[in-house]
Amino acid sequence: MDRRSFLRTSALGGSAAAASTLAAPAYAQGKRTLTMVTSWGRGLAGVFDAAVKTAENVTAITDGQLTIDVKAAGELVGAFEVFDAVTAGQADMYHAADYYFVNQHPGFAFFTGVPFGMTATELNNWYYHGNGHALHDELGEIFGLKSFLAGNTGTQAGGWFRKEITGPEDFNGLKFRMPGLGGKALGYMGASVQNLPGAEVYQALASGAIDGTEWIGPWADEKAGFQEITKFYYTAGFHEPAAGLSVAMNREVFESLSASQQAAVEVAAGHANVWNLSQYLNNNGAALERLKAGGVKVLEFPDSVWDAMGTASQQVYDEFMGDEIFKKIYDDYTASMKASSGWLTDSVGAYRAQRDRVLG
Amino acid sequence: MDRRSFLRTSALGGSAAAASTLAAPAYAQGKRTLTMVTSWGRGLAGVFDAAVKTAENVTAITDGQLTIDVKAAGELVGAFEVFDAVTAGQADMYHAADYYFVNQHPGFAFFTGVPFGMTATELNNWYYHGNGHALHDELGEIFGLKSFLAGNTGTQAGGWFRKEITGPEDFNGLKFRMPGLGGKALGYMGASVQNLPGAEVYQALASGAIDGTEWIGPWADEKAGFQEITKFYYTAGFHEPAAGLSVAMNREVFESLSASQQAAVEVAAGHANVWNLSQYLNNNGAALERLKAGGVKVLEFPDSVWDAMGTASQQVYDEFMGDEIFKKIYDDYTASMKASSGWLTDSVGAYRAQRDRVLG
Repeated sequence: MDRRSFLRTSALGGSAAAASTLAAPAYAQGKRTLTMVTSWGRGLAGVFDAAVKTAENVTAITDGQLTIDVKAAGELVGAFEVFDAVTAGQADMYHAADYYFVNQHPGFAFFTGVPFGMTATELNNWYYHGNGHALHDELGEIFGLKSFLAGNTGTQAGGWFRKEITGPEDFNGLKFRMPGLGGKALGYMGASVQNLPGAEVYQALASGAIDGTEWIGPWADEKAGFQEITKFYYTAGFHEPAAGLSVAMNREVFESLSASQQAAVEVAAGHANVWNLSQYLNNNGAALERLKAGGVKVLEFPDSVWDAMGTASQQVYDEFMGDEIFKKIYDDYTASMKASSGWLTDSVGAYRAQRDRVLG
Repeated sequence: MDRRSFLRTSALGGSAAAASTLAAPAYAQGKRTLTMVTSWGRGLAGVFDAAVKTAENVTAITDGQLTIDVKAAGELVGAFEVFDAVTAGQADMYHAADYYFVNQHPGFAFFTGVPFGMTATELNNWYYHGNGHALHDELGEIFGLKSFLAGNTGTQAGGWFRKEITGPEDFNGLKFRMPGLGGKALGYMGASVQNLPGAEVYQALASGAIDGTEWIGPWADEKAGFQEITKFYYTAGFHEPAAGLSVAMNREVFESLSASQQAAVEVAAGHANVWNLSQYLNNNGAALERLKAGGVKVLEFPDSVWDAMGTASQQVYDEFMGDEIFKKIYDDYTASMKASSGWLTDSVGAYRAQRDRVLG
């Protein structure tokens, strides 16, 4: 596939032309309000908080020189329309999970999470000190975007099922909600995969439009209420070993900011990144206990299912490897993951095992 | 022990009185340069970088309204004198590892790392979404400080030895560099423990003043050059499962800042926190390979050593548990660690095990 095959010519018009109407340099001198559209329902636990934290950080540290007006999904554009809205200049920036935009380019998946890919720690290593951010920029530039990691859910749970999963054949014909490359892998396993915005998942599950869903992890999932409908909950999943959330600004808008304002966006996003990851991880343990107490059966997928997920994931990578940018990102990402992972096993992994053993 | 027993009356004068000479509210209106003293030699890998990143972030996002002048250890005051310099108003802020100040109060150890305590992820969970930051503030207020996490080394290596460690008796009489509560625990194991600033460790090891040392991890340790002197390197250690680095500002100086400037310090520190942790973790893997290739023998402590470390660590906790603030922090910290840890085992732990198994 040629990279240009992924360039969308949006009904809203060419991105550069439309964006330039917003990007008058004069704005940089005075107070300015930027519009942030998001993929999140207002108040959606964690993800919407990360968007708000990023926005509030920018407003606070610029002393209101840049005020960010956060729009929930549907308030200006729909959850999955934020990418086109920002590239077209209809909004200044979005907060979303970039793997929602794999149809714009499959390479965006790496900046959220990919099957058998990086954990949150590994993603940050690559992003801040490997080539991760530079590759995010290279991909974003094609679409007129300037992006920063601005949140992370941590390793996502395998999800909610109406019955126990005993082998890979249980995915055959299953109607399941899963975005990104993970969803494509489930498709190779025979599932009928749907990508629904978070705010629409509960209703789809309740109505039977889907048989099961993954969302995030115990804290966010409990708030979404999936335990009211399904009782089998799988902890670790293959599909999103981390889910990085991004803020992406229309590139011409970003370039119209002063150097100080640009730094404010970058630093604000970095703070939101660690703040949001720890929000999830601080709350998941207690939520899981409540789910168990409420009758949810908490399980791990059997090895046979993990093996099938591994095979299907490789099929997904093979599908996209003909695209030069996808392959370039994949190669760099994979090398970085391997380098990060060994030391984490030797250090924090070995330590945690000894801590568990010694403290009992 | 009463909390007041930890209050130091410094030769530099009472902290509140001296600080007030710096804290004229008029400063908040114009450009202002703050002095940051650090515990780090200029250019010391990772730790000095975290101080500089925090300072540069503040300067950049305030558009130079607050410029932070970073002093290396010895340039204004010595590595371990930064605490007294800031509480006394001789400097505006420090960047250090708060466990250097366990003689001011042992509770400071929790905000760096304690034996069998939190990993970096767990520390962030507690700090940003548990009671960690509030407890840091409560402790700091006694000394006139306002603190923020602003870096982390990740799980530290067990350190460098001249010969293989085969059992806990090998620590008897060993002259070893280790700060904080971990160092006190090694003392219970019979070691002769010294606390030296990073910039002085190489010389002490080379001269035989110490038999061995821990410092940080492969990347920083390699740069320090310990492999030139000792050949036995232990990966995971018990003493610093994470090492949070802090920026602490003289509280009256902090309160003299505008709300926007205060937010800038907080957000700048948060960004430096994730940026610095990923700096270490991105570089450790390759450094470890180079150390191995250079003839360093990389080992794990045997279980008998870990068991003895566990016993000694409990003796250290028991030693300080009579102090009400220490106990209050310990209890909250321990409960948070337990809550964080379970989900991390179920999610990222289980995922990493499956990833290793499936990818081979």
